[in-house]
Amino acid sequence: MGRPATSERGARSGRGGRGGRSGRQERRQAAKRPAPAYITRRIAYYDLLGEDGLDLIERHADRILGEVGVEFRGDQEALRLFKEAGAAIEGERVRFEPGQVRALCATAPRQFTQHARDPARSVEIGGNHTVFSPAYGSPFVRDLEGGRRYGTIEDFRNFVKLAYLSPWLHHSGGTICEPVDLPVNKRHLEMIYAHMRWSNKPFLGSVTSPERAADSIEMCRILFGDDFVENNCVILGNINVNSPLVYDDVMSGVLRTYAAANQATVVVPFILGGAMGPVTPAAAIAQAHAEASVGVALTQLVRPGAPAIYGNFLSSMSLRSGAPTFGMPEPALAYLAVGQLARRLGLPLRCGGQFTSSKVADAQAAQESADAMMPALMAGTNFVLHSAGWLEGGLTMGYEKFVLDCDRLGMMHRLLDGLALDDNAFAMDAFHEVGPGKHFLGAAHTLANYQTAYYEPDLADCNSFEQWFEEGEKDALTRAHELWKAWLEGYEAPALDPAVDEALEAYIAAKKDSMPDAWH
Amino acid sequence: MGRPATSERGARSGRGGRGGRSGRQERRQAAKRPAPAYITRRIAYYDLLGEDGLDLIERHADRILGEVGVEFRGDQEALRLFKEAGAAIEGERVRFEPGQVRALCATAPRQFTQHARDPARSVEIGGNHTVFSPAYGSPFVRDLEGGRRYGTIEDFRNFVKLAYLSPWLHHSGGTICEPVDLPVNKRHLEMIYAHMRWSNKPFLGSVTSPERAADSIEMCRILFGDDFVENNCVILGNINVNSPLVYDDVMSGVLRTYAAANQATVVVPFILGGAMGPVTPAAAIAQAHAEASVGVALTQLVRPGAPAIYGNFLSSMSLRSGAPTFGMPEPALAYLAVGQLARRLGLPLRCGGQFTSSKVADAQAAQESADAMMPALMAGTNFVLHSAGWLEGGLTMGYEKFVLDCDRLGMMHRLLDGLALDDNAFAMDAFHEVGPGKHFLGAAHTLANYQTAYYEPDLADCNSFEQWFEEGEKDALTRAHELWKAWLEGYEAPALDPAVDEALEAYIAAKKDSMPDAWH
Repeated sequence: MGRPATSERGARSGRGGRGGRSGRQERRQAAKRPAPAYITRRIAYYDLLGEDGLDLIERHADRILGEVGVEFRGDQEALRLFKEAGAAIEGERVRFEPGQVRALCATAPRQFTQHARDPARSVEIGGNHTVFSPAYGSPFVRDLEGGRRYGTIEDFRNFVKLAYLSPWLHHSGGTICEPVDLPVNKRHLEMIYAHMRWSNKPFLGSVTSPERAADSIEMCRILFGDDFVENNCVILGNINVNSPLVYDDVMSGVLRTYAAANQATVVVPFILGGAMGPVTPAAAIAQAHAEASVGVALTQLVRPGAPAIYGNFLSSMSLRSGAPTFGMPEPALAYLAVGQLARRLGLPLRCGGQFTSSKVADAQAAQESADAMMPALMAGTNFVLHSAGWLEGGLTMGYEKFVLDCDRLGMMHRLLDGLALDDNAFAMDAFHEVGPGKHFLGAAHTLANYQTAYYEPDLADCNSFEQWFEEGEKDALTRAHELWKAWLEGYEAPALDPAVDEALEAYIAAKKDSMPDAWH
Repeated sequence: MGRPATSERGARSGRGGRGGRSGRQERRQAAKRPAPAYITRRIAYYDLLGEDGLDLIERHADRILGEVGVEFRGDQEALRLFKEAGAAIEGERVRFEPGQVRALCATAPRQFTQHARDPARSVEIGGNHTVFSPAYGSPFVRDLEGGRRYGTIEDFRNFVKLAYLSPWLHHSGGTICEPVDLPVNKRHLEMIYAHMRWSNKPFLGSVTSPERAADSIEMCRILFGDDFVENNCVILGNINVNSPLVYDDVMSGVLRTYAAANQATVVVPFILGGAMGPVTPAAAIAQAHAEASVGVALTQLVRPGAPAIYGNFLSSMSLRSGAPTFGMPEPALAYLAVGQLARRLGLPLRCGGQFTSSKVADAQAAQESADAMMPALMAGTNFVLHSAGWLEGGLTMGYEKFVLDCDRLGMMHRLLDGLALDDNAFAMDAFHEVGPGKHFLGAAHTLANYQTAYYEPDLADCNSFEQWFEEGEKDALTRAHELWKAWLEGYEAPALDPAVDEALEAYIAAKKDSMPDAWH
């Protein structure tokens, strides 16, 4: 199992001494870095259900797969593969014997490496690792000055740069926002290029058609080399199931494209409870289990051993309006169960994110995001797609929300790192030095440990009321606005081999020339 | 073990049918109520540490108690009791053999009932129960219109009324805010009276001197009757240890007063890591364990079998300013360990709360509050003192924060209630009825379950951007302001026997007449 080159624990050995303003700055950096390329969790999973409960969910998933089945619409190749594997085909409906889908998933790896162009940024997906990736798919962006507006390729590049700059995001993401100023049939080329050019972190490719998925992989061949791509995972494709119980030919075609190239698919049932699935969480979990595992099974029929991620996207519904709700307790419980199901199936899990239905980065947004993320992490999620920036049920990518979320991702690094229980941590010398009724501020143990003892947030204001008042009574939203602007001002692009850059640009130009712009 | 008269699960049987505006209102109430008098958790605890780790913490706590000891300053009676029990006394320093303090705690009950004047509002403290109580002790209050200002008895009464009105607070709290417009030596009388008069939920008494604690108990004798108070717990006293490792005579005197009257003490080490304890969490946990258990031991020496709560208050520190920080990952890990330690000791646990250092109810406040509360609940906390209203490291009680926190407490009720796995929850009929590619909105199962399937928040705005925009782009803070005002407008006091009311007022008047006002 892979381990990060520089773990947080490795950075914990403290050094004494105090300094002036620049000294404080250095200490702050020392306390925060080095951030790992991905998280290796050191705390236990939270097991919500016993084996009986998990058996019951799996049995109901098997019943859904056997009694109702899943439709693969317009994809003869998928139907042919399932038929060959022994499934019952009736038109486009595919039904399975109990346990059959589980058995087909067995060849998918429990853990795999997604390589980045900077090897130090490659990530381990699966096992006891967690990878944080920015939010995905919003048509709108929002910031405190400009308000809510359609996203552009400029916004897209900004978010790639911000994700590159955050020490707590391990992944560059995919469609961080939709660049609606570019033609629909060509924007994927500019998105993939932005990930390759303005970041060195791993990323996701296009899923809007099998051809665009193939473009994404082709650009990876230019960046990484043909042989490397044939033998290693360098790109992920995030495939949403057309829940309930349907894969359309675009989704299954894209899935087959990535799997055939030995690249990883993330198979994600997308269930708003009460709409795309039953309103009771247990049923939605069983449905999601059926849908995700049948998608993973298809990847293995295309190419046994191709990496695949068992995904889950489950939300609740407002009784008042029927609108999807986020950060609510019922999906939180579901995430905990889903973590256990993924481990039983032996697959990496994508789940959770910093979700909210709030339109702005206010108390609602933060509360819902925290309550959606924490259970996903307790559940052992390996890949968190919507880690930063999500607003308005995913319709808007927020600049301020993005940096607020990143700060909390840093906290989650510490949480998953667990509690040190060595002699230094127990500080017996300090108790003898200080004794009853005195304070520990100047104790040798404090001086030796305070730089690294606690997570130092970027955005939390812990100052006195008076200081905060004098500094203009700035709330978190205002401070977050200042922070992302400062980050972008300080951005410097990672180096890219000019020959590779030229080859990428040539590929994009040729592709663009090969077809007229299409806007829908 | 006690069970709530009306559990949430009992309220889950759905009814079909849709109506107009009043129908929606009814459904909303039906889905939210009846709220239980306290929570009976149906999900597992999260165990962060193995038995080895817990042994290690207990051994270090024993070393602190044996090698360093605890001082009881100015309390000869406490020293006498510990000497009689076999502890080593040196001046005011008390030292213990390994395991001695643990043995002294053994007579304290694992669980007890705190009675309310309305028996339906009595709470079970300990076991698998959780009780939510408002924040405690702020000199300042804040609301969106009036800003930050010193608290008054009017504010105090407002918060008692708001806590009474929230279905998700089980407890009326104690010093919800300091009524600084009243003399220091008399304000406890008006605070206790407010809890008794404007709420029917259980409450905490005064801890600022043994005499004021005695007043609090005396007023309970008027409300409940002498015999009832002698044989039942009707009031709690929250005693902060003068960490590190000191009890002053006020704190130990108050503790002895409550214990002698068979009333419950909450013994709370108050440790800002790096100041009142070492900067490393493991040491702070061991110190807190030593401090809390020695306080509980004293209650048992005063009166074996008196109810006592093992408390914990642990925060981290900002590297930049030395200010305490809240909602950070290190205390979160500590809470998880503390839950395990309390269970091993067989005592009810007070831990956590919706903490923040933010000055306003913004994204920082919500994020920190969520991250401080969730681990406390995963840890199995039985009594959460600072459940609602906390701002600015406890210096300010916020009106908007209060109702935002209450809404989230409702969500936590659902989370702790767990996942239903019965036939209705698995909804197989719905899958057969709907089938692939259709939606579940009108399915019989949805109609039968949608009223109670999901928690319906008071304050989350899940509407479309357009609707939210037309309604004035209100953020959570603005909506919270409207909500608490509406709550107070609709407040109606619970009935109180006029004879009891007169007796309470006579007691207060006599007490006030017996001494001049003191303002410090």
